[in-house]
Amino acid sequence: MSVTELTSPPAQPLYRTLADHYLGAIRSGVLTPGERMPSVRTLMRTHAVSLSTALQVCRHLESEGWLEARERSGYFVRQPRRALLAPVKEPEVATPDPAAYVGVHARVSAIVARGQQADVRVDLSGASGEATLYPSAALNRIATQVLRRYPLLLTQAVTPNGHPELQTAVARRALDMGVQIAPDEVIVTHGCIEALNLALRAVTQPGDTVAVESPTYYGLLQVLESLGLRAVEIPTSPRTGMSIEALEMAVQAYGNIRAVVVVPNLQNPLGCIMPDAAKRRMAAFCDANRIVLIEDDTYSPMADSPTPLKAIKAWDRTGNVIYCASLRKTVAPGVRLGWVIAGRWHERVQMLKFAQSRPNDSLLQVVVGRFVASGAYDRHLRALRQTLREQRERMAESIAGSFPAGTRLLVPAGGFAMWVELPPNVSSTDLFEAALAQGVRIAPGTMFSNLNRFDHYFRICFGLAPSADLEAALALLGQLTRQLSER
Amino acid sequence: MSVTELTSPPAQPLYRTLADHYLGAIRSGVLTPGERMPSVRTLMRTHAVSLSTALQVCRHLESEGWLEARERSGYFVRQPRRALLAPVKEPEVATPDPAAYVGVHARVSAIVARGQQADVRVDLSGASGEATLYPSAALNRIATQVLRRYPLLLTQAVTPNGHPELQTAVARRALDMGVQIAPDEVIVTHGCIEALNLALRAVTQPGDTVAVESPTYYGLLQVLESLGLRAVEIPTSPRTGMSIEALEMAVQAYGNIRAVVVVPNLQNPLGCIMPDAAKRRMAAFCDANRIVLIEDDTYSPMADSPTPLKAIKAWDRTGNVIYCASLRKTVAPGVRLGWVIAGRWHERVQMLKFAQSRPNDSLLQVVVGRFVASGAYDRHLRALRQTLREQRERMAESIAGSFPAGTRLLVPAGGFAMWVELPPNVSSTDLFEAALAQGVRIAPGTMFSNLNRFDHYFRICFGLAPSADLEAALALLGQLTRQLSER
Ligand SMILES: Cc1ncc(COP(=O)(O)O)c(C=O)c1O
Ligand SMILES: Cc1ncc(COP(=O)(O)O)c(C=O)c1O
Repeated sequence: MSVTELTSPPAQPLYRTLADHYLGAIRSGVLTPGERMPSVRTLMRTHAVSLSTALQVCRHLESEGWLEARERSGYFVRQPRRALLAPVKEPEVATPDPAAYVGVHARVSAIVARGQQADVRVDLSGASGEATLYPSAALNRIATQVLRRYPLLLTQAVTPNGHPELQTAVARRALDMGVQIAPDEVIVTHGCIEALNLALRAVTQPGDTVAVESPTYYGLLQVLESLGLRAVEIPTSPRTGMSIEALEMAVQAYGNIRAVVVVPNLQNPLGCIMPDAAKRRMAAFCDANRIVLIEDDTYSPMADSPTPLKAIKAWDRTGNVIYCASLRKTVAPGVRLGWVIAGRWHERVQMLKFAQSRPNDSLLQVVVGRFVASGAYDRHLRALRQTLREQRERMAESIAGSFPAGTRLLVPAGGFAMWVELPPNVSSTDLFEAALAQGVRIAPGTMFSNLNRFDHYFRICFGLAPSADLEAALALLGQLTRQLSER
Repeated sequence: MSVTELTSPPAQPLYRTLADHYLGAIRSGVLTPGERMPSVRTLMRTHAVSLSTALQVCRHLESEGWLEARERSGYFVRQPRRALLAPVKEPEVATPDPAAYVGVHARVSAIVARGQQADVRVDLSGASGEATLYPSAALNRIATQVLRRYPLLLTQAVTPNGHPELQTAVARRALDMGVQIAPDEVIVTHGCIEALNLALRAVTQPGDTVAVESPTYYGLLQVLESLGLRAVEIPTSPRTGMSIEALEMAVQAYGNIRAVVVVPNLQNPLGCIMPDAAKRRMAAFCDANRIVLIEDDTYSPMADSPTPLKAIKAWDRTGNVIYCASLRKTVAPGVRLGWVIAGRWHERVQMLKFAQSRPNDSLLQVVVGRFVASGAYDRHLRALRQTLREQRERMAESIAGSFPAGTRLLVPAGGFAMWVELPPNVSSTDLFEAALAQGVRIAPGTMFSNLNRFDHYFRICFGLAPSADLEAALALLGQLTRQLSER
């Protein structure tokens, strides 16, 4: 495979390459809002392209909301509307509320069930991309080849801990994140959710207290409740992640925190990324205080960042970090594969995995392992990130255009979803119900915490391709919010 | 598909059909040991077959140990050697030992690990058939078709609880066992082991006491330990399964038994089948005493019985029975699929499944669902049972021929493995180690209980095809036992 193949996105038309070029200039501030875009004639000359290509460049940037055409004077860089939105507020750092029994499971289940009963036309409640954004054709081809090559794969016994092809492929990818492990340290699981279950079961007893981000992934809260664990929610910055100061205060105040679960990269629902210095400090703090650090790294390959994000595990010197990850968001939402690197608790996690569900079966491990080991995975990830970035920018613009004053938004640097702060008097539960009645589904803020702090937030997914339905759904959400805020 | 296709085993040569005919006569006692087999000439005339076919019939039955050739007088029915073995002893029915913390996990893991480290040539420690006994070609063909037909199957979101094709297929099969359920009552799991985990998690708290068979499947003991449950082992008959009298005594003595786990059909390791009257009584007793009955029905399609065995669930009037089953032993050992019908605890099991590992992914559910819904599954099961029956008879004969006096065996009416009682002074742990040193692996009795009662038993698998290696392994086991008994 040639280097060009690796670095240029697959089969992108020329106008898109040029548009990206100018978009980069706008983003980096080389071209500023109000400034004139080089004329169509200039574009033709500078890049030796046809009139139609030069026009396509400008029209594309216009349709994406970056340029506006002014009668007879050409295209100008627009003030992005999202710049008008203030960012989501930072939390107060204080001693967190005492550990409370997590009772969200029933509430979350009820919200999920409400969403499933209703007739949903536009589902913005998820946290992954549409099926068509994933490499179905490549995976299906590999699957067919693998079945032909290993005809007994479905009928022979499976390998312990995971299939070596997948273990090797993910161990190699982990290197990029600063994590150096042998393939047989990888325990393959049924998604990251099973990895989290095993990690928590390995290091806690029912009744123990676990620190989590606030807000956090509702699935984690359900796991904690189902295992009889107590949670203490630690204030978390929408920019830099869990507050280590607040964690320190909680540890001092309660003294019995057994483990902490952190999503350092593209946290769900905030989208924040912990700076490397904070990751290092977190690893050291937990180690020094004998708190097990469970790292959930479901999203890091989805970051805009040109260099791979580091895992907290990269600073783990004592095996105190249990690293959990998923392939569902990056390779195939319909394939339930994740893995765990359990450090000091490897044997115990292995034993629990065996008792809970036995080693995973082989077929999809081999298929995904081969895909992840190939350059096709890198190309897929680049294209996926590019598409999502475009969809994200476009959605942020729409929200800025349709939501009332007082709405806040901090657009994340990657991932699939963003966290919107509503005006203080608007309840996202009301918005959820009103929107659902019209076929639009969002994830209300109350799903992401057991405290009563996030009712005027919601999470919205930008994984759907642009469409008139999507634009209408966003306009509807803005209009409903306006109505609710005026009540 | 024609009826003949459904009822005649696939492509069996004529001599085998005739041999089976006479084998049936021997088994049913129409031809008795010592009696003369009809002569080759008689066979030719009676069945209008060639000399070579008639000779093949006799030679096949001779090679299987059913006939012996006597110089110049033809073939005679042999005294089967297994008839010389006394059956495994019945347990004493008494108040079971008090609930003890189950500490088997580490021991079982150690035994499993020992077996995996060693250089095993003949592995008789399992409880399923060789890969070649399963329908790889059919499954691979369906998989390829399904991927072509549903190109987004790997990349789109999965359906809650299970894929409707599999839910419907197993719900239809359950009808044969007397269980009438709607497809959406089926929750698909990662094998029966996950089903057992969910069932136990749904109805117990750590510290609770659960009644189990003694001996029982070691995987169940590991699950109990990993969930912090206590076990009380109920004496179990190698013919009729768990003693209801002993269960009643245990319930009276301890009063705090929350659930009972039973394998009514082809119990592992004993191979026993509970009579229908006992199944009915068990269901009623548990219901009356508010003890949740968890039924593990991993093996019932593997019974010799021409009519399908009934599940205890067939007598469940109140939703008190949680029915767990697997497709691994019957369809494909490399596919981790099972299911649970949770009766009164449906919602709770569903919630726990979601929190523990989310709904299973679709591909293999659709593939196996289509296979199970087809007549090919019935044909496969018939052929598999027939092969296993032959392998079982042959192995019983070999054991009878090579093990010393004092060895006992009750050949089960189906399944994959049998339970051998060694002379009282022979430890199966010693036999396990001595055999492993020579590349032969068995499952020692200590794996199947936390009491110290089963060290002079072992479980042996008849899932391997006949071979010189297998015969040598059985001879070796007999010889080692002889040596150990003479120490
Ligand atoms: C932070 C986080 N962790 C874990 C998961 C679950 O991952 P999987 O689907 O691989 O089980 C999700 C899915 O949304 C998530 O957002
Ligand atoms: C009685 C019994 N239950 C459950 C299981 C586990 O079934 P699965 O492999 O479907 O998880 C086994 C496997 O040996 C078994 O013998």
